[in-house]
Amino acid sequence: MTDSTRAPVRRALLSVSDKSGIVEFARELVQRGVELLSTGGTYKLLRDSGLPAVEVSAHTGFPEIMDGRVKTLHPKIHGGLLGRRDVDGDVMSQHSIDAIDLLCVNLYPFEATVAKPDCTREDAIENIDIGGPAMLRAAAKNHAWVAVLTDPADYAAVLEEIDAGGTTLSTRYRLAVKTYALTARYDSAVSAYLSSLRDDGKRDSFAPVFGLQFDKLQDMRYGENPHQRAAFYRERNAEPGTIAAATQLQGKELSYNNIADADAALECVKSFTKPACVIVKHANPCGVAVTESGIQDAYERAFRTDPTSAFGGIIAFNRELDGDTAKLIVERQFVEVIVAPRISEAAKKVVAAKQNVRLLECGEFPASRAAAFDYKRVAGGLLVQDVDTAVVTPEQLKVVTQRAPTEAEIHDLVFAFKVAKFVKSNAIVYARERMTIGVGAGQMSRVYSAKIAGIKAADEKLEVPGSVMASDAFFPFRDGIDAAAAAGITAVIQPGGSMRDAEVIAAADEAGMAMVFTGIRHFRH
Amino acid sequence: MTDSTRAPVRRALLSVSDKSGIVEFARELVQRGVELLSTGGTYKLLRDSGLPAVEVSAHTGFPEIMDGRVKTLHPKIHGGLLGRRDVDGDVMSQHSIDAIDLLCVNLYPFEATVAKPDCTREDAIENIDIGGPAMLRAAAKNHAWVAVLTDPADYAAVLEEIDAGGTTLSTRYRLAVKTYALTARYDSAVSAYLSSLRDDGKRDSFAPVFGLQFDKLQDMRYGENPHQRAAFYRERNAEPGTIAAATQLQGKELSYNNIADADAALECVKSFTKPACVIVKHANPCGVAVTESGIQDAYERAFRTDPTSAFGGIIAFNRELDGDTAKLIVERQFVEVIVAPRISEAAKKVVAAKQNVRLLECGEFPASRAAAFDYKRVAGGLLVQDVDTAVVTPEQLKVVTQRAPTEAEIHDLVFAFKVAKFVKSNAIVYARERMTIGVGAGQMSRVYSAKIAGIKAADEKLEVPGSVMASDAFFPFRDGIDAAAAAGITAVIQPGGSMRDAEVIAAADEAGMAMVFTGIRHFRH
Repeated sequence: MTDSTRAPVRRALLSVSDKSGIVEFARELVQRGVELLSTGGTYKLLRDSGLPAVEVSAHTGFPEIMDGRVKTLHPKIHGGLLGRRDVDGDVMSQHSIDAIDLLCVNLYPFEATVAKPDCTREDAIENIDIGGPAMLRAAAKNHAWVAVLTDPADYAAVLEEIDAGGTTLSTRYRLAVKTYALTARYDSAVSAYLSSLRDDGKRDSFAPVFGLQFDKLQDMRYGENPHQRAAFYRERNAEPGTIAAATQLQGKELSYNNIADADAALECVKSFTKPACVIVKHANPCGVAVTESGIQDAYERAFRTDPTSAFGGIIAFNRELDGDTAKLIVERQFVEVIVAPRISEAAKKVVAAKQNVRLLECGEFPASRAAAFDYKRVAGGLLVQDVDTAVVTPEQLKVVTQRAPTEAEIHDLVFAFKVAKFVKSNAIVYARERMTIGVGAGQMSRVYSAKIAGIKAADEKLEVPGSVMASDAFFPFRDGIDAAAAAGITAVIQPGGSMRDAEVIAAADEAGMAMVFTGIRHFRH
Repeated sequence: MTDSTRAPVRRALLSVSDKSGIVEFARELVQRGVELLSTGGTYKLLRDSGLPAVEVSAHTGFPEIMDGRVKTLHPKIHGGLLGRRDVDGDVMSQHSIDAIDLLCVNLYPFEATVAKPDCTREDAIENIDIGGPAMLRAAAKNHAWVAVLTDPADYAAVLEEIDAGGTTLSTRYRLAVKTYALTARYDSAVSAYLSSLRDDGKRDSFAPVFGLQFDKLQDMRYGENPHQRAAFYRERNAEPGTIAAATQLQGKELSYNNIADADAALECVKSFTKPACVIVKHANPCGVAVTESGIQDAYERAFRTDPTSAFGGIIAFNRELDGDTAKLIVERQFVEVIVAPRISEAAKKVVAAKQNVRLLECGEFPASRAAAFDYKRVAGGLLVQDVDTAVVTPEQLKVVTQRAPTEAEIHDLVFAFKVAKFVKSNAIVYARERMTIGVGAGQMSRVYSAKIAGIKAADEKLEVPGSVMASDAFFPFRDGIDAAAAAGITAVIQPGGSMRDAEVIAAADEAGMAMVFTGIRHFRH
């Protein structure tokens, strides 16, 4: 029943900001004969609940001073947390230091303090917790004997261990690791806040000192290439509907490239409200379609854009994956990953026949993507920017040609521009009836992206005449429009803003094309 | 002389791990009438230097116990650091708490502790500093009155301020911000170490909790697109020869895309030991050349690959930029950024005539790139991997065809494969005499990348026959080789490893081509 690493719990110090479950936890401890120390609001709550807690100031014999700035910063507390039970026994009894075997402290999240609209700099500074982190760090260091709890989710497991003879070293170690992650995050938030605060009380968008913390979801067999080691991390509070929040229902382990491509596919398919399918290969959409008639038809049409590239691709939907669509996919093509907000039971059964296919359920998409930062690594540094969440609506389009686009063209233009946002720059997308007809990706000059879109459409025998064209950035010259007109493109969507816009518009007018400006560029490299 | 935010310094607590400058600093403080408190090795050093320091235990009246685990964690110390001089005066005198106006503590870097080959888990845990961070955090919180020093580089400025009547609020604030950044980084290192330690004493390559900290170099006007806000951050100890370590000598402010492209150009040009030039546009090399005859010739040849894309590009060199080469560039083409390890005086003068051109000096390249992590952002998470530092040498090549490549072909093959590493996948590079002849980038199927390389060569009237071809990943079918043979390609370099390698090799043999396998793939998306 007892093992050498189990540590008994005779005395516990409880001082929490998040009080959920604390009274019940304290009561269970008392029932197990544990002596309670506490301070402030927690002390009051425990006493009001009829629990026998001793106030820290009574325990130390030193009053709480400076409005609580100094209460636990005392040798009787820190000696009780830091004392090594095997060698410090004498010095502890000499100074009447009682061992504290369990510490339960959680910190009021600093980000929440400073997120309050009326929070002043003084409020924020007054809210920086000094005593709490000091105790947490001390207890975590001494995890050879002390259990440190920072999360109500851990209360039950610790009680169970106490019942089994004491907390285990492995649990205490795990809790210590969690504690240092918390104190690191806390000070990172303090540092970011203080450094970003300007004299007018507003905050810089980008703090002078920028800290990030991620939790590992999985090690990967390798990275972008087999000689690179890799792991996948998730941020705290990752939103549902993202690759980081997705659950893998079956299939081989996700690879680095799978995750990157599934992310691109999901974020792209999320742009559409009607049933949609996006197929991604090598970080680019190689087929996208939107249709009223459901995702099976959307997949059919997305696939037709470029069946060669779709082979071994990543397929994302913005609706539940049904059995029929799943069947169509796995019987027709080699697919690496299928991802959708929900996977029907029928679809699960169908895909189960192909055990290598990675099937992911990511949860429903939130109504809009929360503001977040995008990172691009460069040697020695990091570029940080807002995620590109801009979405163009028909109302925002500015018609610049004599002919305005028809309603059907408008649908296709908006569709094509949404796709272009996810195609690597320079991006040119040809589309018709909300299906991609040709995708020209990743070229160093725009004219080659247009050439490729045309070549791909021709190779797949997809009809360009009657299609629209989207460009992720403006046309610097009229040649791109002239070539599109020659290919039968009837309408163009682009940001506008070139020095030669007048020339470009004239080219469209000469060909009877409709052209709209979005005012929004979508470079993506 | 006095201003209301200046704080006098009457008592200072000094306890440092990095002792550089501490004796001189302490002596200056003593000369200004400051009373010194100290502990441990710092105390001994000060006394040995004849300085009148009081030991913390004498000051608190409480002995240092538990081998130093508990010494400063005492109300007399923390009250002295945390007391608000305007409201806590009474309680301070009541408890004989003397105000401490300056704290000088630096922490032994935890990363350095655990980097020692003989460091055990126990050593590491014993080395976690509890008292130091507690004092640092307390003093930083109370920066309204207390100056907190964590870095010898700040000693001189603080002494100057003391001479001028006391430390200023703006300095104390800056020092407080620096302090929380330090404690955050410290606990992040502790958390990463503890969480990554395995039972066999080895460490996981990727810690379960992963923390990053960067310092802002500059805010940017905008990010990848005008509607995205952005900033550029540098890691601590950024290596010379990187974009993050570069100094801008002239020109408009660097944009987000400038930095990303200059990074790609620099990292690519760094791959070559002979004089080289890399021109990047939209994250891809659009012209690369290596030559014995110097960087002017290298630029000439790199430019010829694709003059259209080179317009508005980023140009990087691996040698000092001389005046003649600078002149050739700025007189011929519109260039966004020129970057080189050094910029000669003559080059500075030449480029000064074009005030918009951003001229960057990045410093000499280290002999090899230090191990580092690469990050790829996905929604809700982060992919972390080793930077792709693999470099193929002629000795590693495995000849798989009947004909072995000639020495000239080997040079071109290695050159082309080094370039392909920096071209977005799928990447196909045609090269001859260590000059790129056609670059096929960013396609969803390999055959299109090859097509593009060919089209671009033809458009620039560059002769493909006699060129070699590099592919960043294996050829899945023989068609890519057949097409290359038809175009006049004489030798091929690729990782190998396809199920159909035999077929692919046969295709090369039939055409009398030489083919080598590298065993290394270079996907880059």
